[in-house]
Amino acid sequence: MPVTASQQVLENHAVIVKDSRIVALLPQQQATQLYTAAATHDMNEHCLIPGLINNHAHTAMSLFRGLADDLPLMTWLNDHIWPAEKQFVGDSFVESGSALAIAEMIRGGTTCFNDMYFFPDATARIVDRSGIRASLGMVIIEFPTNWAANVDEYMHKGQQLHDHYRHHPRITTAYAPHAPYTVADTTLEKIIVNAEEMDLPIHMHIHETAAEVSQSVEDFSMRPLERLKQIGLLSPRLIAVHMTQLSHEEIEWCAEAGVHIAHCPESNLKLASGFCPVNELDKQGVNITIGTDGAASNNDLDMFAEMRQAALLAKAVGQDPGAIPAHKAIEMATINAAKSLGLEQQTGSLEVGKYADLVAVDMSSLESQPMFDVVSQLVYATGRDKVTDVWVAGKQLLTSRQLTTLNETKIIADAQQWANKIGSQKP
Amino acid sequence: MPVTASQQVLENHAVIVKDSRIVALLPQQQATQLYTAAATHDMNEHCLIPGLINNHAHTAMSLFRGLADDLPLMTWLNDHIWPAEKQFVGDSFVESGSALAIAEMIRGGTTCFNDMYFFPDATARIVDRSGIRASLGMVIIEFPTNWAANVDEYMHKGQQLHDHYRHHPRITTAYAPHAPYTVADTTLEKIIVNAEEMDLPIHMHIHETAAEVSQSVEDFSMRPLERLKQIGLLSPRLIAVHMTQLSHEEIEWCAEAGVHIAHCPESNLKLASGFCPVNELDKQGVNITIGTDGAASNNDLDMFAEMRQAALLAKAVGQDPGAIPAHKAIEMATINAAKSLGLEQQTGSLEVGKYADLVAVDMSSLESQPMFDVVSQLVYATGRDKVTDVWVAGKQLLTSRQLTTLNETKIIADAQQWANKIGSQKP
Repeated sequence: MPVTASQQVLENHAVIVKDSRIVALLPQQQATQLYTAAATHDMNEHCLIPGLINNHAHTAMSLFRGLADDLPLMTWLNDHIWPAEKQFVGDSFVESGSALAIAEMIRGGTTCFNDMYFFPDATARIVDRSGIRASLGMVIIEFPTNWAANVDEYMHKGQQLHDHYRHHPRITTAYAPHAPYTVADTTLEKIIVNAEEMDLPIHMHIHETAAEVSQSVEDFSMRPLERLKQIGLLSPRLIAVHMTQLSHEEIEWCAEAGVHIAHCPESNLKLASGFCPVNELDKQGVNITIGTDGAASNNDLDMFAEMRQAALLAKAVGQDPGAIPAHKAIEMATINAAKSLGLEQQTGSLEVGKYADLVAVDMSSLESQPMFDVVSQLVYATGRDKVTDVWVAGKQLLTSRQLTTLNETKIIADAQQWANKIGSQKP
Repeated sequence: MPVTASQQVLENHAVIVKDSRIVALLPQQQATQLYTAAATHDMNEHCLIPGLINNHAHTAMSLFRGLADDLPLMTWLNDHIWPAEKQFVGDSFVESGSALAIAEMIRGGTTCFNDMYFFPDATARIVDRSGIRASLGMVIIEFPTNWAANVDEYMHKGQQLHDHYRHHPRITTAYAPHAPYTVADTTLEKIIVNAEEMDLPIHMHIHETAAEVSQSVEDFSMRPLERLKQIGLLSPRLIAVHMTQLSHEEIEWCAEAGVHIAHCPESNLKLASGFCPVNELDKQGVNITIGTDGAASNNDLDMFAEMRQAALLAKAVGQDPGAIPAHKAIEMATINAAKSLGLEQQTGSLEVGKYADLVAVDMSSLESQPMFDVVSQLVYATGRDKVTDVWVAGKQLLTSRQLTTLNETKIIADAQQWANKIGSQKP
């Protein structure tokens, strides 16, 4: 399933990989005649798809998975998440949490993620070691955290991250101003200039809740998106996360400016944030991508579940059972995200010249029967547990569900140790 | 996780089973001292839960899984589902489809289902053979199908099914009038009398879509639920399926009458039917249960996914992140459904005297780490693929993910054969 504009599915085809990139995609018989391979993988009962791209994550928060659920938003933040972050978040926490999250993502067919969290250097080390692909956020927020004391320090540390990894084949960076209500206009103006100079995306939570919007109306006499528009933030650089509160006019602004949406359906449901108008955004031609958000509010990093959820929810919210058909849901989880990250020449589809970021999904189990339509089956009836093998840039990271680059036993032991520390401090 | 009113979770406990029923639930150490077992199963990394109850299914429709997706409702029905049903549905189709569905349900931790479909005798044979528990619908609809020509024949065949299985330890029956718009008042009146005499539930699609409601207003000058209320259908016998369109007054009627709801969250999303007001129903004390609906409109029979979906969606629809907390979602998928089927003395929780309908879920994988709260983890982060072992009435139906009573290879081959026939007839 190459996930190209034609929406074609190719049967009995082979993907030829050389030096990390796809060099051909052709019928199996021709492949056997034309190529001699150093190694071959027969995936006869599988569907091969481009690696999924999780376009909004806070990976290290996986260590808070299930710490506090079913609570009002402000109780959750004030009494649980923020105190826990203040006490525990540091280089070592982020390293353990990122390893747990990246292992989960690889096992679930995700080959690239767009992250926003403190101590991104620690995440970068695990990305480097694990072989996954990532866009790491240069986080900026107007208040001090364990990571930085003020905007200058956030900017400086972000720049250092960027410079350190600028030639890495799998790591890119993005500006990640937290949200309209936590970042000042002057800071956003600086970010716009820098992002332009460095040619980087800007990754930001926007219109997550109705409360955020009404607070902005009170503080700025306008809704957040209008404020961001005036500052000049609406452009193809912007990846706007959540966007559950949107007027028809605001949707038009996004379409005109080429803003990308990172839709987080499960997080929006679980925190009762609201419904992103995916069907209308799609009809207006806005590029929609999908993210899991952090595991503290989801509670997993399962892009198969999000893809399915995005397709289902768009129908009910848009009152149209034809909204976001199966193939479009896969596009949202792959090529659309690659476009938003400026990586559409590198990944997001199975095409000659792109990196071999591949996921093999076993379609032989009885849960996948009968097989009228493989695209429909993949989106509506297949879970991440059916992912058997994963490659990024031609390197195999998962073989028959076993991680090849990360130590699963150590990751679980580390997570349990952190849970013991965090759990004993619960209020 | 016994799923009792205390919502307690017991650690390091043992379940003692004798002659198909639970005779004790006690700490492992005491169990070892007090009992000598003919067979023991050590489930040290598992969470043991009551078998899940799928409270609305059309099992045999699994053979139509993925036949026609992403279509407007009437196109889906008129051009795909109804023609396919007319051409293919018969005893043999229902036998193959039921086997596929029951195999999928057992592998996913479902130990009981409430079915509504033609040729229920064929389903009953597979229920009997497989060891699963079921409430089989005596389907009644005012127009002819391959199963019966008129209401008298539907009634008669239903009665035969009931009589044949009245002493079966795992099969019960329920009246299953299709919907308000397909069953006449006089027929419903007969059903009420019979259900009272035979002490049976009544299982019916109600208020699935807004169109159904407005059509009723046109035809009967009232909404369907008011019409059913006047006929006398609203009672603790009634399992009302879908219920996406409900006024505040109608919710009060349901609460006062003791009506049970079978909420089908994924089907309602996929067909863009609307949102069941689960949070408000729950606050009014209405007993809410969960169903998958048929695989033609879902597209799986995954009660873990539905349980999670029900918990997530209730929060967003109710605009309350505290709506349907994790333990309540499990209650909906177990004991609440048992109550609606009149089986609460037999199944739905792990309590002394009930049948040993047990599901072991492996919580050791990295996707389940860290472990702050097992209930939260089970609902929000665990998939059906983690179900390893399943027992119904003490008999093991799944051992380390292998079916013990059904032939998986044959089921898949049969499904593929049916797909070949059906596929070649597609318009």
